[in-house]
Amino acid sequence: MADPRIEKWARALAGYSVEVKAGQTVAILGHPAAEPLLRAVHREVVRMGAFPVLLYTAEGATADLLAEGSDEQLRFISPIDRFVRTEADVVINIRAETNTRRLSAVDPKRQSLYTAARRALFETYMERAADGRLDWTLTLYPTDAYAQDADMDTEAYTDFVLSACKLDRDDPVAAWLELKDEQQRLIDWLDGKREVHLSGPDIDLTLSVAGRTWINSDGKRNFPSGEIFTGPVEDSVNGTIRFSFPVVTAGRQIEDIRLRFENGKVVEASATRNEEYLIQQLDTDEGARYLGEFAFGTNFDIARFTKNILFDEKIGGTVHMAVGLGYPETGSRNKSAIHWDMIADLRQGGVASVDGEPFLKDGKFVV
Amino acid sequence: MADPRIEKWARALAGYSVEVKAGQTVAILGHPAAEPLLRAVHREVVRMGAFPVLLYTAEGATADLLAEGSDEQLRFISPIDRFVRTEADVVINIRAETNTRRLSAVDPKRQSLYTAARRALFETYMERAADGRLDWTLTLYPTDAYAQDADMDTEAYTDFVLSACKLDRDDPVAAWLELKDEQQRLIDWLDGKREVHLSGPDIDLTLSVAGRTWINSDGKRNFPSGEIFTGPVEDSVNGTIRFSFPVVTAGRQIEDIRLRFENGKVVEASATRNEEYLIQQLDTDEGARYLGEFAFGTNFDIARFTKNILFDEKIGGTVHMAVGLGYPETGSRNKSAIHWDMIADLRQGGVASVDGEPFLKDGKFVV
Repeated sequence: MADPRIEKWARALAGYSVEVKAGQTVAILGHPAAEPLLRAVHREVVRMGAFPVLLYTAEGATADLLAEGSDEQLRFISPIDRFVRTEADVVINIRAETNTRRLSAVDPKRQSLYTAARRALFETYMERAADGRLDWTLTLYPTDAYAQDADMDTEAYTDFVLSACKLDRDDPVAAWLELKDEQQRLIDWLDGKREVHLSGPDIDLTLSVAGRTWINSDGKRNFPSGEIFTGPVEDSVNGTIRFSFPVVTAGRQIEDIRLRFENGKVVEASATRNEEYLIQQLDTDEGARYLGEFAFGTNFDIARFTKNILFDEKIGGTVHMAVGLGYPETGSRNKSAIHWDMIADLRQGGVASVDGEPFLKDGKFVV
Repeated sequence: MADPRIEKWARALAGYSVEVKAGQTVAILGHPAAEPLLRAVHREVVRMGAFPVLLYTAEGATADLLAEGSDEQLRFISPIDRFVRTEADVVINIRAETNTRRLSAVDPKRQSLYTAARRALFETYMERAADGRLDWTLTLYPTDAYAQDADMDTEAYTDFVLSACKLDRDDPVAAWLELKDEQQRLIDWLDGKREVHLSGPDIDLTLSVAGRTWINSDGKRNFPSGEIFTGPVEDSVNGTIRFSFPVVTAGRQIEDIRLRFENGKVVEASATRNEEYLIQQLDTDEGARYLGEFAFGTNFDIARFTKNILFDEKIGGTVHMAVGLGYPETGSRNKSAIHWDMIADLRQGGVASVDGEPFLKDGKFVV
């Protein structure tokens, strides 16, 4: 007897986000804390005539490996990871952490070694997605840990997640298709334009998007989604930016990040908390100091910051950008083992202009 | 901060049962309900310099697949199963069901189809174990479900499991080595002998073990263990037997099983409950009506029947036999997709004689 909201969620993921087809091999990944949704998705995939492979993830064990494993052990790629990255036709990834700070005591150098060892596999995964051999989606199941990060009660947080996913609507898929149309209108306006200029408190940044492709992120690869993104021309980024919200990643909170770019490269970086970790991540590899993504958040069902990038980067009226790996389908050529999203709130006094025309002002699209 | 009894258990499994060596690929399987032991084993394997692959199992999803999947979906072998059966150097399997009757509504024909599709893979696994390419062990983590089957409180059941595994001793491995010596004494006596005759209430059965090998099961492949077993000559079994304890398998309890053998084959089979299921299983394939195993239980730390074969078949002073797949290392040539153990209690008025001499009488070894 499954919760009808969970059944609706499973149908939206399998039927809309990745559009499972009979005969496909479908990897379903997630921590056991998400068991109700994992099982509902598994059942839905069975009903659609595909071959589900349910894989429970084990964040705690990964933390133990990072704490105690040798370099050789950190570099070991499990056959499961290899299957998910290189063989599965569809990957449905359900995040459900029970402690988001599990990795907080891990030496960042060991984290980098672990990530770098998986770089080639991750690139293969992205390439398979770009050329249509793979469909994937990522969603997040509400846990006490996520609610705690959001400073919310778990019941209220669950409502927040369901609303952000538009699962509180009678027909969630229709709501996603409506947002897709609105995003397409924005993309049609952006197409062919060249330069983005961001200005606001502590922000004065220019970057080129000339020749790059804007992607309509409509609840398929991220669920929820609600953003339009591209890959900036790698050496075009210049100026300074201060990010309004902290980055929460790998068990750490990096606060008040400020970056200065010169010809695409981050040449100055600071943070008021965990600055050392920020610098170490930027030094992971050559591509880690260049932008791989630039995007506008368009999901106005997400209004509050909850310290989780899946939701935060979609907040309607914000912009975000990521250092590190770019998405090949945008035209980005940047390669890296990392992909770090950072968000700037333009809802109070910020402006994003494109080729001199205001596009987003005080958190509203004005075209 | 792990329970010291769990740490002791993990060390016994990794260090004694499968003797993990640096560089080996070690699959660690189990339901998330066993997370404390799964993580402790994972940590121990990391410390031993091997490559652990932690795989949480999903019994609930398997039940859904059996209920709703097409024949083609039931025959699908996941790459994870393939890895475990054909590639891993070591498999540590930790059973931890949260409901032992999950499969009770599944059509036995569908269960047979699912099992038969995995037969070749299971045989490969057994062959790899027989020729030393694979080390495996199976243990059981106490859950409410198992305690309920045993008619015990979960705390008391946990003590029962730890005691059966000799984990309540200061040095569990020393205790296992002691039992191994005692079992070797019994095997040395049995070696070269030919005919076993069982007699007792409703039991009059003969079988040949001529030329077959007795295996000293000393806490390695089963944890706990405590049995000596062989593969009877396939066409040698004649007579009748009534099994004292029900068989609990695939969500069903089959009670008061009686079998009649002629030249090795089960020619009559009855049960007072779930007889139809018993017959269907015996008709799985040609080998399902022949014995693949005959054994004596030697673990006198297990005195009570708890409806779980891992413990029940080891009860000191009982005998058990399995229809279906035999272990190649015993000399058994029987092949089947099933392996069904059934137990006869010889502790009250039963005798097992070997070549005419009493070997086990009223539950005590008398040689």
